[in-house]
Amino acid sequence: MLGSGFIGRFYADSIQGYRSQDKVVSIYSRREESARKFAEDYAVPFWTTTMEEAIARPEVDIVCISLPNNLHEEAVMLCCKHKKAVMTTKPLGRNAAEAKRMLEAVEAAGIFNGYLEDLVYTPKFIKAEQSVRNGALGRILWAKSRETHPGPHSDWFWDLEQAGGGCILDLGCHCVEITRSYIGKDIKPVEVMCWADTQVKPIEAEDHAIGLVKYENGAIGQFEVSWTFRGGLDLRDEVMGSEGTIWINSFLRTGFDMFTTGKGGDYVAEKAESNTGWLFPVGDELNELGYNHMFMDMFNALEKGEAPKETFYDGYVVNAVLDAAYRSAKSKLWEPVNLEVWRGREGVGKDSHLIEWDADHYLVKEEMTHYGAKKLILKHKVSGAFIQKVLE
Amino acid sequence: MLGSGFIGRFYADSIQGYRSQDKVVSIYSRREESARKFAEDYAVPFWTTTMEEAIARPEVDIVCISLPNNLHEEAVMLCCKHKKAVMTTKPLGRNAAEAKRMLEAVEAAGIFNGYLEDLVYTPKFIKAEQSVRNGALGRILWAKSRETHPGPHSDWFWDLEQAGGGCILDLGCHCVEITRSYIGKDIKPVEVMCWADTQVKPIEAEDHAIGLVKYENGAIGQFEVSWTFRGGLDLRDEVMGSEGTIWINSFLRTGFDMFTTGKGGDYVAEKAESNTGWLFPVGDELNELGYNHMFMDMFNALEKGEAPKETFYDGYVVNAVLDAAYRSAKSKLWEPVNLEVWRGREGVGKDSHLIEWDADHYLVKEEMTHYGAKKLILKHKVSGAFIQKVLE
Amino acid sequence: MLGSGFIGRFYADSIQGYRSQDKVVSIYSRREESARKFAEDYAVPFWTTTMEEAIARPEVDIVCISLPNNLHEEAVMLCCKHKKAVMTTKPLGRNAAEAKRMLEAVEAAGIFNGYLEDLVYTPKFIKAEQSVRNGALGRILWAKSRETHPGPHSDWFWDLEQAGGGCILDLGCHCVEITRSYIGKDIKPVEVMCWADTQVKPIEAEDHAIGLVKYENGAIGQFEVSWTFRGGLDLRDEVMGSEGTIWINSFLRTGFDMFTTGKGGDYVAEKAESNTGWLFPVGDELNELGYNHMFMDMFNALEKGEAPKETFYDGYVVNAVLDAAYRSAKSKLWEPVNLEVWRGREGVGKDSHLIEWDADHYLVKEEMTHYGAKKLILKHKVSGAFIQKVLE
Amino acid sequence: MLGSGFIGRFYADSIQGYRSQDKVVSIYSRREESARKFAEDYAVPFWTTTMEEAIARPEVDIVCISLPNNLHEEAVMLCCKHKKAVMTTKPLGRNAAEAKRMLEAVEAAGIFNGYLEDLVYTPKFIKAEQSVRNGALGRILWAKSRETHPGPHSDWFWDLEQAGGGCILDLGCHCVEITRSYIGKDIKPVEVMCWADTQVKPIEAEDHAIGLVKYENGAIGQFEVSWTFRGGLDLRDEVMGSEGTIWINSFLRTGFDMFTTGKGGDYVAEKAESNTGWLFPVGDELNELGYNHMFMDMFNALEKGEAPKETFYDGYVVNAVLDAAYRSAKSKLWEPVNLEVWRGREGVGKDSHLIEWDADHYLVKEEMTHYGAKKLILKHKVSGAFIQKVLE
Repeated sequence: MLGSGFIGRFYADSIQGYRSQDKVVSIYSRREESARKFAEDYAVPFWTTTMEEAIARPEVDIVCISLPNNLHEEAVMLCCKHKKAVMTTKPLGRNAAEAKRMLEAVEAAGIFNGYLEDLVYTPKFIKAEQSVRNGALGRILWAKSRETHPGPHSDWFWDLEQAGGGCILDLGCHCVEITRSYIGKDIKPVEVMCWADTQVKPIEAEDHAIGLVKYENGAIGQFEVSWTFRGGLDLRDEVMGSEGTIWINSFLRTGFDMFTTGKGGDYVAEKAESNTGWLFPVGDELNELGYNHMFMDMFNALEKGEAPKETFYDGYVVNAVLDAAYRSAKSKLWEPVNLEVWRGREGVGKDSHLIEWDADHYLVKEEMTHYGAKKLILKHKVSGAFIQKVLE
Repeated sequence: MLGSGFIGRFYADSIQGYRSQDKVVSIYSRREESARKFAEDYAVPFWTTTMEEAIARPEVDIVCISLPNNLHEEAVMLCCKHKKAVMTTKPLGRNAAEAKRMLEAVEAAGIFNGYLEDLVYTPKFIKAEQSVRNGALGRILWAKSRETHPGPHSDWFWDLEQAGGGCILDLGCHCVEITRSYIGKDIKPVEVMCWADTQVKPIEAEDHAIGLVKYENGAIGQFEVSWTFRGGLDLRDEVMGSEGTIWINSFLRTGFDMFTTGKGGDYVAEKAESNTGWLFPVGDELNELGYNHMFMDMFNALEKGEAPKETFYDGYVVNAVLDAAYRSAKSKLWEPVNLEVWRGREGVGKDSHLIEWDADHYLVKEEMTHYGAKKLILKHKVSGAFIQKVLE
Repeated sequence: MLGSGFIGRFYADSIQGYRSQDKVVSIYSRREESARKFAEDYAVPFWTTTMEEAIARPEVDIVCISLPNNLHEEAVMLCCKHKKAVMTTKPLGRNAAEAKRMLEAVEAAGIFNGYLEDLVYTPKFIKAEQSVRNGALGRILWAKSRETHPGPHSDWFWDLEQAGGGCILDLGCHCVEITRSYIGKDIKPVEVMCWADTQVKPIEAEDHAIGLVKYENGAIGQFEVSWTFRGGLDLRDEVMGSEGTIWINSFLRTGFDMFTTGKGGDYVAEKAESNTGWLFPVGDELNELGYNHMFMDMFNALEKGEAPKETFYDGYVVNAVLDAAYRSAKSKLWEPVNLEVWRGREGVGKDSHLIEWDADHYLVKEEMTHYGAKKLILKHKVSGAFIQKVLE
Repeated sequence: MLGSGFIGRFYADSIQGYRSQDKVVSIYSRREESARKFAEDYAVPFWTTTMEEAIARPEVDIVCISLPNNLHEEAVMLCCKHKKAVMTTKPLGRNAAEAKRMLEAVEAAGIFNGYLEDLVYTPKFIKAEQSVRNGALGRILWAKSRETHPGPHSDWFWDLEQAGGGCILDLGCHCVEITRSYIGKDIKPVEVMCWADTQVKPIEAEDHAIGLVKYENGAIGQFEVSWTFRGGLDLRDEVMGSEGTIWINSFLRTGFDMFTTGKGGDYVAEKAESNTGWLFPVGDELNELGYNHMFMDMFNALEKGEAPKETFYDGYVVNAVLDAAYRSAKSKLWEPVNLEVWRGREGVGKDSHLIEWDADHYLVKEEMTHYGAKKLILKHKVSGAFIQKVLE
């Protein structure tokens, strides 16, 4: 490297941060055809349709579980048996009981365990979370995450037995961990209210749901999930704090707009539901959706013998929140979050935020009106009466 | 007019649609100073601090009530007494009981009554509602409206007795009528779940709330309201239908971005919480917020002897929904909407929307994958099993 | 009006600002069928295919010329003859010679003359211009206006003889007046460089052009115009000042996004080139494109006996700039703007903007780097050497 | 890897695509302090203030030049001497003569040479270019690239001798290569018109410039560059084709909006000119600005013994275009691009794009009017007359 200035540093950051030294060495699939094709496409030296065989091989350092939800537990138990580090796609279990068994098993076996919640590893989320932790938004009051699209890719998602649930489990697991991370992973989620319905799809599970998660410190989490959304993938977070706001859009309208009549060629845009008219492509999906930063964290943690940012414990907490959401959707009540394992803080109350204006008054609000004056709303400390005061 | 082509028509539409023939002829205010100043600023020939005097004057064709919520009923009753047409700012009453008394009084008196819900008259809403009515979105599944800002302008809003409520009543009345209009004003709202809290402000009323309103046909309405939002006025609607989506932003980020260091002059942007950095001014607030189209509808309806789009009946329905929201925020239950007066349809069920793929299967979903193939998810009509099929 | 507070003022502003008292009383069209239809649609009592007849009628207070460009001069001369106030659609003439004859004629006749340049009357422009005049952007360095779409509506636009030019004349007239207004209408445009080509359409005139307009004070105006743009109407302005930036989008992406599969109904969106997929409707075109505020200014000025914001003089200056653009497109040289009539300032030079840092240095720049330090770039006053200084 | 489905593939793509195997092994800086700090921060085993020493070390596979412009040639010549593969930051030379000497030297030495033009490697650009190559936009008519910000980071940029130019050379080199890539790197740039001025900064070089680059096939490139922009980094491309449009925003407003009062903490946003109010952070700058994909291409090409996407030849073409821009800014004429070395196509003319409507007419345009009719503009093949036809 010649030059150590601004651009030299940019270059070095990038050179030393890319081009993988990590390789897939063994692939298992339930169907031979699928295993064989994957092995071919990704130059994987070994393939099999026997799960244990894939796991047990000596060259395997860490097992990555990207199977349907109903197979997670079996795969995790095999990793425990063979003492292999393991990372599992989201959600961890189909419910908190499954998740708890997996959590206890990996901890008993003493193996590395990572929970592949990619959406708390997106570049935007990482930067936003830093700002929140640094206090840029003050006290967090509300965090909402929305993930909606026209439905999942594979058949098993639609089957209640294999999937364990509908869009709440499939998409809500992202939203719960995102909002929990903004509010603080050490703050306890206490109860959940959820509406869910099957509005459009010919399935038993829910295809649309909205939920509220109350935290011990008075903050509120919200998820909006659906498999009935039309127009592509909608992936947005909003956070309100006493001193600021964050809006994140992770997919549509992120700086790339394209119009095409479709006459010019055979172009097809991904997930866009159409290939003519105005389209909103995403440049580098893997990076925007957090995969790169997620695996970097997992592998770095594994090498250092540390826990990654997201572990099976986090997966378990998410499952416990979603269980409460499912119960609430049926009972129509606020349902408590049952957390038999809880490692965060307890008894965190609401902060007081009275702002003193003068000896007699608290400040309620100050504002510029549309006719140009500065207006104060004050509350008398003793009488509680509200007055307004216009300053020129 | 010379020329009757494209531009001639544009010009004529505008020429015949603007520059008011309507004048304020009488102004009442509780404070003399305020009445006098208003009369001066708007060239109003008569001012008074006696409400009945303002109403009774013969040159008054219609009375416009823009008073604190606790004075609406008194003012309406005086209009009934003097048989004056009346239009009232939102919300109609502090609760459904007040609203119902006003509704019954104006109907008994046989006078014109208009409900000044400006946000269903914004140019964007009007066009969006048309699209929805024309079927562009298919069956409406969900409609959300969000209005949040750093708190209202005048002292009385903050006083629970005068206002009758906090941000649910102040902002939720907009959101309920907006979402109800998307879903269909003839569809009955049946129950409400609401979370509310006082998170930041030193007041008794709620400063933040989220509510769900279930409609008889299975559609779901949602409101998000707050007086604690930082960053200006956030006014957005979202609608999901089985065939489409609408997103409306009525304030921030609507095509006008400005950065200023603040060194250049004394510029102050309204409601923006700051006058330096990136600001998002709105060109013509009156028009963007629906006032122009609202009064045009009111006056045109009055002249034709017809009801306007929004009447006291609508104000009453909104109050009934909000009453249920307040009850729910306390009881933590889904609370029924008590509508003693209901003039819409009854017993509207959910539509079935099974799409037949072939003799044996329903279509669940079709999609383009990120590796370029077209994939179908199908459900077997008899067995209920899900299969996927890849078409090249 | 009951109540004189915040909302009462909003209501009054709107009530007294809308619902027209102005009516079209006489309509002329070259084709009888067209005149008759217009009269019917807009309830116009008199129609004719004889231009002078339409103008001469005693009930006509002001004549609005919305004819093809080649008929403007004839119509203006008839207005002069009958001493009728006149307002003319843009561009004023097909060239500066025509425009100058019209300007001199209306001034000799002493009649009111308005130039219907609607895009300097859009709500966004009006507010932006105010900010610029108040100094929010400091000294204006550059102002660009872009108007592109897939081509005009009527046959005569495409005919060089009737139109007098292609997209430079049709769209550039807007852009020149917009940028000139940002830079200052009293600052003299001195020379123009323009590229123009006929890239797509089977016509003699240009269908795409880019031009630069140099002003006496060193500011630069820019226009980008095209009839070949795909994706609807693109209407954007950008302004750079020494202390700030303005970006205005007047059409696409202004807070209204709609996705529709098109299965739901027969909805058609205007100017959108498609009626399925993602569409970007505009709520109230008349208002967003400036027509309402333009005619309000015209009629108010007429009643007060004053000149409107835009007169034939402005139309003439625009034509002179566009003439230089056409000459430049052919000569490939910077062409001088020939302004035989100029009523603004003369000899305005460039301001100096040296910022002193300390006794020995000027400040070139201060900045926060991506690794968190504050960095200054300074220039030595005598030696001219540049140094950087990092402040922790 | 367990599971080879949709998510398994996503994971594998990411796992095998990240976490670098590439390391900086030797660092040279002109200042010892700076070299030492870099070595420490990036764990570089060897540092020196002697350029040749850094290059000559046996463990160096490729030399990365990130030095001020005036030192590029010297560094390149040393790489030739030691037969080391080399990649150089942009611009390649201070002018085409320097660039040509470097190009000829590396080719004579037979060494790998890469031109570090990161902005044609951004994820958005890569995807957009693919769409363009696949025909989604039809024939490319115009490509514009804009890069403006409040000025560069280091002192040497501001010094004309070291930098070789102002914002044209610093930023225009990006814009020229971006637009050239959209139009087609095998299409010859033929002439350039450029306006440049020093409007704000106390420097000899230009701080603001706008240029047009004409290509042999009639397409037009445009660059807008400035060191006087206020509001952060503005990095946008626009492309118009006969069948579509692309708009790319690479920095501001890409899906991450944050408002902060600044009271909550010490947060500082990069390049944002302020740390309160509305800010627009970018999640992962290195990726968004193209560095990751650029080095991946460079190293992969080096390993395979192929040329990377961007070589010294491209750097030379860019310098030749910029030389013409500088000449034009002085001469005020369209200046020819002098390309003594040209390896693309020659004599590419403009395509004809007449669309036949019927035996007698060409189609000029079809459109939906705002009053709901479908209108055609046709041109008679023989007479050239334009007619319009309304289809119901």
